[in-house]
Amino acid sequence: MTDPARPGTAPRRHLLGIAGLSLPDIHELMDRADAAVSVSLGLDKKKTALRGRTQINLFFEASTRTQASFELAGKRLGADVMNMSVANSSVKKGETLIDTAMTLNAMRPDILVVRHHAAGAVALLAQKVACSVVNAGDGAHEHPTQALLDALTIRRRKGRVARLVVTICGDVLHSRVARSNILLLNALGAEVRVVAPSTLLPSGIENMGVRVFRHMEDGLSGADVVMMLRLQRERMQGSFVPSVREYFRFFGLDAQKLARAKTDALVMHPGPMNRGVEIASEIADGPQSVIEEQVEMGVAVRMAVMEWMMDTNAAGPGR
Amino acid sequence: MTDPARPGTAPRRHLLGIAGLSLPDIHELMDRADAAVSVSLGLDKKKTALRGRTQINLFFEASTRTQASFELAGKRLGADVMNMSVANSSVKKGETLIDTAMTLNAMRPDILVVRHHAAGAVALLAQKVACSVVNAGDGAHEHPTQALLDALTIRRRKGRVARLVVTICGDVLHSRVARSNILLLNALGAEVRVVAPSTLLPSGIENMGVRVFRHMEDGLSGADVVMMLRLQRERMQGSFVPSVREYFRFFGLDAQKLARAKTDALVMHPGPMNRGVEIASEIADGPQSVIEEQVEMGVAVRMAVMEWMMDTNAAGPGR
Amino acid sequence: MTDPARPGTAPRRHLLGIAGLSLPDIHELMDRADAAVSVSLGLDKKKTALRGRTQINLFFEASTRTQASFELAGKRLGADVMNMSVANSSVKKGETLIDTAMTLNAMRPDILVVRHHAAGAVALLAQKVACSVVNAGDGAHEHPTQALLDALTIRRRKGRVARLVVTICGDVLHSRVARSNILLLNALGAEVRVVAPSTLLPSGIENMGVRVFRHMEDGLSGADVVMMLRLQRERMQGSFVPSVREYFRFFGLDAQKLARAKTDALVMHPGPMNRGVEIASEIADGPQSVIEEQVEMGVAVRMAVMEWMMDTNAAGPGR
Repeated sequence: MTDPARPGTAPRRHLLGIAGLSLPDIHELMDRADAAVSVSLGLDKKKTALRGRTQINLFFEASTRTQASFELAGKRLGADVMNMSVANSSVKKGETLIDTAMTLNAMRPDILVVRHHAAGAVALLAQKVACSVVNAGDGAHEHPTQALLDALTIRRRKGRVARLVVTICGDVLHSRVARSNILLLNALGAEVRVVAPSTLLPSGIENMGVRVFRHMEDGLSGADVVMMLRLQRERMQGSFVPSVREYFRFFGLDAQKLARAKTDALVMHPGPMNRGVEIASEIADGPQSVIEEQVEMGVAVRMAVMEWMMDTNAAGPGR
Repeated sequence: MTDPARPGTAPRRHLLGIAGLSLPDIHELMDRADAAVSVSLGLDKKKTALRGRTQINLFFEASTRTQASFELAGKRLGADVMNMSVANSSVKKGETLIDTAMTLNAMRPDILVVRHHAAGAVALLAQKVACSVVNAGDGAHEHPTQALLDALTIRRRKGRVARLVVTICGDVLHSRVARSNILLLNALGAEVRVVAPSTLLPSGIENMGVRVFRHMEDGLSGADVVMMLRLQRERMQGSFVPSVREYFRFFGLDAQKLARAKTDALVMHPGPMNRGVEIASEIADGPQSVIEEQVEMGVAVRMAVMEWMMDTNAAGPGR
Repeated sequence: MTDPARPGTAPRRHLLGIAGLSLPDIHELMDRADAAVSVSLGLDKKKTALRGRTQINLFFEASTRTQASFELAGKRLGADVMNMSVANSSVKKGETLIDTAMTLNAMRPDILVVRHHAAGAVALLAQKVACSVVNAGDGAHEHPTQALLDALTIRRRKGRVARLVVTICGDVLHSRVARSNILLLNALGAEVRVVAPSTLLPSGIENMGVRVFRHMEDGLSGADVVMMLRLQRERMQGSFVPSVREYFRFFGLDAQKLARAKTDALVMHPGPMNRGVEIASEIADGPQSVIEEQVEMGVAVRMAVMEWMMDTNAAGPGR
């Protein structure tokens, strides 16, 4: 993901999606993140790898956890971190996405962390700016750091990702988390399954290298990992919004359904959870849940991603 | 307020209320805050006591001054400080208080500063997380750093708190400030009086070791300190919302009423003030007012509280 | 702009407007900013000139770019920077501007950066606080750092400002940018022209040392610099709000109108732009545009202004 062709600038690394990563890139990122865990969890959390660097978090969609995770990651690396609250910004005065990006670019950040409601908006923006760009979620397209932290959580618990059966359940249609996870888990050699009601499945999902199931009981059978997705009712338009009670009955993870998976299967959720909708509280808080560990890994993964981008850039032929 | 029972973790100190503090704790905090004043007011305000530590300000209620005071205190101690704007957060997507807390906890902060509209919410949250928690105001329950900064202001001006007559006036019913101050001033040996209309007095207030007065003239007679409370009309529901004009006439502090107190009596207010409602402008800006000094002491007290918590934790058997 | 008369405090420098600056001040600020450019654009952006200092950005009007520029400038100088989101603050609870300022002042910042919708509000506030104050825009009055960054951009491109023909076009009536620029460009010896519809011209503008034109073609003839202003429809009240299409036809900068200026004329805009309203996209993105460079210079100018204020203060007889 370097950009050697841009005249007058050094190569830059972006993280726009799992789709653009080579397998060595993936392994390097995961190894770096694994190493960053001890720093991000240690008593002295302050590193200086990004001292003198500027990180701007540009969130066109509000997000507590992802923005906080990137903010802490940058601060623990010693960067100057600035949050742009776009809801109150020039964007409201009619400025375009590109003008906003060019303005921020002129302030010479080193890293732009961008969340946008439109698929492809982050990649478009990356073409316009002179710094490294991280996709923190673009529409229903990709959310690569979420997939990396999920894979790291699995690898630390199970020792590997390859050949594990991972079942992704729920609102796949609106989920960039599902999409990035399918790409990454396949690249790492897992057997990926998807369980969803037909109305929440994107067309052509079968071509992404997954097995599709209509019933939780079938899809969970023998699974090593159960990834629940948030039911994103706020993204649903038009006629089909499922009733919460019906949804939980058929697609919510409860003890009875989980019993079909392996006894040591991990239960994951990207948060924020709808308790009693896609997951029962006793499962979310139960012994198989690694949901908090996912959040922990998130800070480490984002530290690793930003260090990786800056290391590469510094190695280029000047800036 | 240590937590030795939590398996696998070191003892942690919280500051959930004045109610949980021993007298030695109180004296230690006030002495530390007194020492911090010179730092917080000096030219070089930067210390390194909290370098590498992460402080998260989690405010479920908006508050300019308290959040700013904690933010500056943390930054002057060298901490990484992150503000969570909960109004735009997952909480709006239906996430529970506990899930929000657990998510933040998984990002491994050292200190959570929490304001919440429900009494007891901060203590509940402290049971769930692995870090130190400061109560920055929970409903009508407690606001311990406000009481500490008020006591420090008095002690610095009067040389002591013991045996002073302190009269708290106004909307005691909705005031966590009053509650924390009553507890702290009593612990320090002051004679505490309360003046309020009967509709703004909590039931059972007499059992808190205060003398209750209905008329300002009586309650202020001979007082060393006059603490005015903000009339919190935004918290009043139902039928009784006093008329501003009537309220000021009977319970607003003006020159005539203040003349009943000692001539060197201090005038205090936790802010933000309703000028012309609970206090006349000429009194707020007059020679007896120490209202700005209270804000100054606020930064010092919060520095002291956070250093105190971290010192104790570091002394524990590892983290 | 020092304040030697304030008893008990050292002289302080403010930047309240171009109007208060001497010519040596202006040259010093521009030379300092020129020197700061290499730092603000270099790889290691971190200086320590403001380490231990506290900068508070107090914005009563939302502004993405100006607040971000000041925030990055402060962080790159090593200051502790705090943003006050006034929209959610005590101001909403009825606190006055002065009480807000006094509260912040009591937290002992070194620098207050203030934007306010009322002309004169920032100067009023500067009289009440003990720290240095920067006007980041007050009503239709002044926006001095914008004028300084515009002049710096011109000087770096053209080698000088004196004797250049600078044409300011558009909504002069609502523009503090125009006002500060007219003052500064005149002080630096430029020939300043103004082009605007009569309804968007302040009365008495002729007395500010500018030549007024009604037609773009006339005002742009032979110009070295074309400064477009944002059409501030959000500030227009009452009957006259121009139609966008008509406005662009007569006062929008397109290739045909720009052809009247010198072939190497610079095109400037303070942002955020209304593309297709006051400026055509192909001009905004064209080879004569220095709009992004203005943003770059903005960070350098704000670094220079804040260092200049602190240097002077430190030279005073103690604080």
